[in-house]
Amino acid sequence: MLFSIDIQVSVPADLPQGRKDELRRAETVRAMELMKEGKLRRIWRVVGEVAGVSLWEADTLEELHAAVGSLPMYPYLKVKVTPLIEHPSMAAWKATHGDLPPF
Amino acid sequence: MLFSIDIQVSVPADLPQGRKDELRRAETVRAMELMKEGKLRRIWRVVGEVAGVSLWEADTLEELHAAVGSLPMYPYLKVKVTPLIEHPSMAAWKATHGDLPPF
Amino acid sequence: MLFSIDIQVSVPADLPQGRKDELRRAETVRAMELMKEGKLRRIWRVVGEVAGVSLWEADTLEELHAAVGSLPMYPYLKVKVTPLIEHPSMAAWKATHGDLPPF
Amino acid sequence: MLFSIDIQVSVPADLPQGRKDELRRAETVRAMELMKEGKLRRIWRVVGEVAGVSLWEADTLEELHAAVGSLPMYPYLKVKVTPLIEHPSMAAWKATHGDLPPF
Amino acid sequence: MLFSIDIQVSVPADLPQGRKDELRRAETVRAMELMKEGKLRRIWRVVGEVAGVSLWEADTLEELHAAVGSLPMYPYLKVKVTPLIEHPSMAAWKATHGDLPPF
Amino acid sequence: MLFSIDIQVSVPADLPQGRKDELRRAETVRAMELMKEGKLRRIWRVVGEVAGVSLWEADTLEELHAAVGSLPMYPYLKVKVTPLIEHPSMAAWKATHGDLPPF
Amino acid sequence: MLFSIDIQVSVPADLPQGRKDELRRAETVRAMELMKEGKLRRIWRVVGEVAGVSLWEADTLEELHAAVGSLPMYPYLKVKVTPLIEHPSMAAWKATHGDLPPF
Amino acid sequence: MLFSIDIQVSVPADLPQGRKDELRRAETVRAMELMKEGKLRRIWRVVGEVAGVSLWEADTLEELHAAVGSLPMYPYLKVKVTPLIEHPSMAAWKATHGDLPPF
Amino acid sequence: MLFSIDIQVSVPADLPQGRKDELRRAETVRAMELMKEGKLRRIWRVVGEVAGVSLWEADTLEELHAAVGSLPMYPYLKVKVTPLIEHPSMAAWKATHGDLPPF
Amino acid sequence: MLFSIDIQVSVPADLPQGRKDELRRAETVRAMELMKEGKLRRIWRVVGEVAGVSLWEADTLEELHAAVGSLPMYPYLKVKVTPLIEHPSMAAWKATHGDLPPF
Repeated sequence: MLFSIDIQVSVPADLPQGRKDELRRAETVRAMELMKEGKLRRIWRVVGEVAGVSLWEADTLEELHAAVGSLPMYPYLKVKVTPLIEHPSMAAWKATHGDLPPF
Repeated sequence: MLFSIDIQVSVPADLPQGRKDELRRAETVRAMELMKEGKLRRIWRVVGEVAGVSLWEADTLEELHAAVGSLPMYPYLKVKVTPLIEHPSMAAWKATHGDLPPF
Repeated sequence: MLFSIDIQVSVPADLPQGRKDELRRAETVRAMELMKEGKLRRIWRVVGEVAGVSLWEADTLEELHAAVGSLPMYPYLKVKVTPLIEHPSMAAWKATHGDLPPF
Repeated sequence: MLFSIDIQVSVPADLPQGRKDELRRAETVRAMELMKEGKLRRIWRVVGEVAGVSLWEADTLEELHAAVGSLPMYPYLKVKVTPLIEHPSMAAWKATHGDLPPF
Repeated sequence: MLFSIDIQVSVPADLPQGRKDELRRAETVRAMELMKEGKLRRIWRVVGEVAGVSLWEADTLEELHAAVGSLPMYPYLKVKVTPLIEHPSMAAWKATHGDLPPF
Repeated sequence: MLFSIDIQVSVPADLPQGRKDELRRAETVRAMELMKEGKLRRIWRVVGEVAGVSLWEADTLEELHAAVGSLPMYPYLKVKVTPLIEHPSMAAWKATHGDLPPF
Repeated sequence: MLFSIDIQVSVPADLPQGRKDELRRAETVRAMELMKEGKLRRIWRVVGEVAGVSLWEADTLEELHAAVGSLPMYPYLKVKVTPLIEHPSMAAWKATHGDLPPF
Repeated sequence: MLFSIDIQVSVPADLPQGRKDELRRAETVRAMELMKEGKLRRIWRVVGEVAGVSLWEADTLEELHAAVGSLPMYPYLKVKVTPLIEHPSMAAWKATHGDLPPF
Repeated sequence: MLFSIDIQVSVPADLPQGRKDELRRAETVRAMELMKEGKLRRIWRVVGEVAGVSLWEADTLEELHAAVGSLPMYPYLKVKVTPLIEHPSMAAWKATHGDLPPF
Repeated sequence: MLFSIDIQVSVPADLPQGRKDELRRAETVRAMELMKEGKLRRIWRVVGEVAGVSLWEADTLEELHAAVGSLPMYPYLKVKVTPLIEHPSMAAWKATHGDLPPF
């Protein structure tokens, strides 16, 4: 199952710089683990904002919830989960051309 | 350049069924052309809604505007464009592991 | 998988009464089929509003989308899907008392 | 009487971990008491969010207010109460098939 | 049980005047019946707007829903129901002074 | 003149319990004085929320402003004032039946 | 008593030009009557918008409601009424300097 | 040039009373200076709220910005500026009757 | 004086294509006149949307209002006017470097 | 590529004045560097608000993100990026008259 997750990050401006750096390092480490497990499929930064657009894959809703909640920055995130299915246009492509161009 | 585009479709409920079908067929044809040109990279349906989440690639903003505006359903769409760049976590992955797992 | 779906109904006030009645009958028939299939688990009316709160079960997101979209009133519905998992309090209950009281 | 209650939890990120754990334990204990009393009928976690969707039963509005307000996390909750009645589709089911499938 | 109901009226500007007058007459007749039955306790007009603030009493949620839905203008109303209980200040008054001043 | 006032209370969760109790006691005392003066006519608690719905009577706007602002919890309140007049349905009742049923 | 009223005008774009002109003429005539009666004290156009900011004076809320509702464009207006009292700074001016500069 | 300015005041509830009083006194002094200079033409308090509705006159946008920003409470204000011009109804009045009634 | 104006265009989807084309041609002609007069300084299309971001110069608010209202598409536009002044950073540039780079 | 960026500044009211001044000085220095590099093309202050409207030029989205994020006040900014392309009216001008009037 595929999910789009919009993420707004609100780390308080007055959090000590050391704590911010530590959070960012831990966030990267955990994100890479989730990518390795095939749960976090893609994540992008929204231009100009401290926000992200991401795509997640999970076999169950429980698995998705645990994965998102395991991010070290989770207490500072505003998260919006959107469940996705294949769009008819992408289905038509596959029926005609087979696999999608790699992405 | 990569862009996430959220799409809300508002085809009027009282549009004749024949016109609706025609619009959907034309939409699929055009979407597949845009996929072939590498402009529309992915598109998904939001579960339960007449809405889509999509990812577009374009060399210029003009190209992106022309591509989105060429959709036959464009007059019935509410469109929100979000410019994206690589997230630090994805950059860290590439630095460590090379390519991302295909998606 | 369990999903909460909030539904706002916007049948135009000037739709002929006969068509409204027909829609409502067809809606009930289809809802009962979805209940029989175990997809629509519960549905309530919001007091004073032409709106509903409902709980759906589905094995896949595709199944859920097809089920919701098969409602005859679907073109007149505004739908918000919320994926749900067990709350820790309900898990604690089950660990202590076994099954939840029937509902 | 049945009520749907949407709950947003906003425990401050800087509350000491010990206090957070204590609140969660107390919340579970109180929730289980309310479930035993038949007031809190069901509660789910919204996937990816610190939020809940719940169903409550009460003989009076006073009873409902007291039950919700007795949650130890109440000062950190944003609560939206929606009074519910049976939907015509569920009434039609009961008229035809008797009891609803257990849930 | 007491409920506050905020009502926004949206009769289309192009509805024939005769139909508008008819609706208003029927609305007044039905409102007076509901007042006689003790269901519609008070209703005021919001100054400058085609909107109302009203207080309703009902023994059950079903009764309330039926009462509101029986208004002839119901298809043109946007309705927000707020369940109410006694405020501590009003309880303190009654404990000290007995009945509230008539209103 | 009659006014409906919606009140949202936002006492900070970390205010010392003693200060909260003191505020509540002072609020009740002042509310009862305003009821005695015929300014605060009715006040109810919104079920499940720390919010109120209230009806106020005042000869002048200045009097209303002073009354609301004299509540000890005023610095923590979000207040929305709605000026009201008699609804045509209530006028029709009085013309036909005289006084409204006491409330 | 003084009231600020924000007005949004939504005359449908497809209303015949003749009807629009007629409405505008009637609106001006009625507005001037209300100005003569001292009820509509000032009215301005919001730059670039079909909207107005206005100040009204009335002895009673009933009088204000009747005045606003008597505008020929009323069925096309969205109206927000804000009751006003003297600001402490204006009171301080009057205490020191007497009358305000004419406006 | 004339501008309507809506002002929301958000002085933190926990600011020491002495500082609050000082701010209010300074605000009044500065407001009176701006009134003397003919920049702040009128200001009213919104009934029941810590908010204001005001009318400002300025020869340039720079002058208006400097005037508003010179208010001692400016760091605690949320400000919305609306540029205004004469409404056709007020122009019609002047063409017919000359000056507006003093206000 | 400089103003930023955000424009949302809502030409109804069912307006005949001929009328749409005519409107667009007339819009371009009028826009070019306003550019010649130095009133419409710059206008851009928002990527993917039927919306514009524009900068206008005017000596008076009346002039600005007349200019915007003279656009043939004006009845289909939602317009938001924001008055602008020089930013301190741009003033600092001019003080140091003289003219801004042409744009 | 051109981008319009709306900026809301939310420096906390209780930040020490010295830190505020330092931030402002650093902001001006960095803004002037970005202007020199041709990235920040124009920036204006919104009249009466601590907000800005700005135009940015960038060859890539990464460049734009880095430029905006390099502002010393960035942790206190709420930023909304809007990608822009030439409007048909400006294209028509250039086709007819060549360069736009300098701005």
